[in-house]
Amino acid sequence: MKLTQFVQALNEEFSQQTYGEHPEELYEPIRYLMSLGGKRMRPLMTLMATALFTDDWQKAIKPATAVEVFHNFTLMHDDIMDKAPLRRGKPTVHAKWNDNTAILSGDVMLVQAYELLMFVEDSKFKKALKRFNRTAAEVCEGQQLDMNFENRENVSEEEYLEMIKLKTSVLLGYALELGGIIGGGSEKSCDLLYNIGLNIGLGFQLKDDLLDVYGDPEKFGKQVGGDIISNKKTFMLIEALEKADGETKVALNKWLSLKEFDATEKVKAVTAIYDTLGIREVATVKINTYFDKAFEALESLKVDEDRKLILRTFAETLIDREV
Amino acid sequence: MKLTQFVQALNEEFSQQTYGEHPEELYEPIRYLMSLGGKRMRPLMTLMATALFTDDWQKAIKPATAVEVFHNFTLMHDDIMDKAPLRRGKPTVHAKWNDNTAILSGDVMLVQAYELLMFVEDSKFKKALKRFNRTAAEVCEGQQLDMNFENRENVSEEEYLEMIKLKTSVLLGYALELGGIIGGGSEKSCDLLYNIGLNIGLGFQLKDDLLDVYGDPEKFGKQVGGDIISNKKTFMLIEALEKADGETKVALNKWLSLKEFDATEKVKAVTAIYDTLGIREVATVKINTYFDKAFEALESLKVDEDRKLILRTFAETLIDREV
Repeated sequence: MKLTQFVQALNEEFSQQTYGEHPEELYEPIRYLMSLGGKRMRPLMTLMATALFTDDWQKAIKPATAVEVFHNFTLMHDDIMDKAPLRRGKPTVHAKWNDNTAILSGDVMLVQAYELLMFVEDSKFKKALKRFNRTAAEVCEGQQLDMNFENRENVSEEEYLEMIKLKTSVLLGYALELGGIIGGGSEKSCDLLYNIGLNIGLGFQLKDDLLDVYGDPEKFGKQVGGDIISNKKTFMLIEALEKADGETKVALNKWLSLKEFDATEKVKAVTAIYDTLGIREVATVKINTYFDKAFEALESLKVDEDRKLILRTFAETLIDREV
Repeated sequence: MKLTQFVQALNEEFSQQTYGEHPEELYEPIRYLMSLGGKRMRPLMTLMATALFTDDWQKAIKPATAVEVFHNFTLMHDDIMDKAPLRRGKPTVHAKWNDNTAILSGDVMLVQAYELLMFVEDSKFKKALKRFNRTAAEVCEGQQLDMNFENRENVSEEEYLEMIKLKTSVLLGYALELGGIIGGGSEKSCDLLYNIGLNIGLGFQLKDDLLDVYGDPEKFGKQVGGDIISNKKTFMLIEALEKADGETKVALNKWLSLKEFDATEKVKAVTAIYDTLGIREVATVKINTYFDKAFEALESLKVDEDRKLILRTFAETLIDREV
């Protein structure tokens, strides 16, 4: 089994999905957002997890797309809430159409995610659905926490990690778990898979925070320093606020409180503070801790070692990624 | 079996539902909206339909609440889109909190509707879910059509009826059908129940349009003439535009085009035009046609006649309602 087979199968499936016809105003934004692509990480994870247990991984294709459609539904609604103008370098749905369209098209996408999940075979369906419901609610909870944090002075590392766990990681956990359920893995294996996905998700999000500061501008898709400019309470800033004292603390707080500033200058100055405090190293250690946990859980999974290879390689790519 | 038993069972169930705990910002708006009450028509219909086939209608209580939670989810999101300040005489969720809260709390409500639907027993669950998905998508389609119509000069009677069918009636159809499925009704009985609900829904919505013009201000909850003031393309206005000619047409168009006017005067004048054109009678005939279809379908349903009584009485109340 090769990753490219999974990618190809998913691309084919996504290219055939029409989502609905009439009224066009409702379904066109869905096709638009889904056509913008993205890494399709989540459905890939579902297929990889299914293939741990069975060669008939094709039966997981449609349910795997449910996870991707759900993920894109959250993007469509989150982008309204965050007033984000761009998604994957293109105008967001609410920017291209309007808020109402993004609300309603998003709603019908959530319904379609449920419809696609129904392709899980009967004997496994209720378990897959039960876990999907829990995960979907948690993703909403994570988004709510994220919004709450914007209006708060202080957010602890623990609170931040809980937020990204809910907003991002549980869905990666579910993506793998769903593959385990469809593949016929034992209860224990499915739990382990969830755990692997959860830790990959935490490492993945922290890597995102790290790249936003230390990414290579040539390779990084977004503007390096974007989080610094907007005072976003990422792992980097939260750590820095906890570690800084004396002059460093004064300098950091000054940059955070300035209403008007030169963006390049602010990014340079705050990055220098992070350098002084060793935040890059703290983050790297934390990221590795999560990925290590994921690899440990993968180790203990009772399936043929060569079947695990594709998932292990995939996780390694996520650690090393520069984009 | 009495209606009050069903009402009591639902009230008890709703009073026990907490919807979720943390973060409070996400779940409090759900409790708020659900606490505003409303007629609870839809879950009542589900219980009534279940009781057509079995005395064990209690097993339908939780799935019935799924329909009500779904309905309230649509209200929460529709109110954002319509910029509505009030719902059941109280501030809407987006007005009391903000748009983001209403979007996200609504999203998690939709997830909870699915979770509650899972209380349908296994052998019947996939059918109930399949039909729920279709209905949910149609309700979104109806809302999209409704928004489209606002920006259009002309809407035909046929288009309007299609819109209210999707936006309102299919969910009433589903509410009854779900009861049929849970109660163990045959495929044919479930189809008939859907049909009954659909026609009740169409009659119900047209009655709403009628009451907005001809309701008794002492009894009607909302401002009589609200639709006239806002030029809302209801059945009444669409019929009037189709029927009016000569001076009446000129007068009607004048009122529709006026940017500034005395509200009471406009309501009086447009109502007088409706009187001249006999719109009240046209609407009444149409409403009765739909309810007659519902009663016919109920007639042909193969269950004990005395079991049908409660549903028939319920439908009659809807025809005669003044609120």
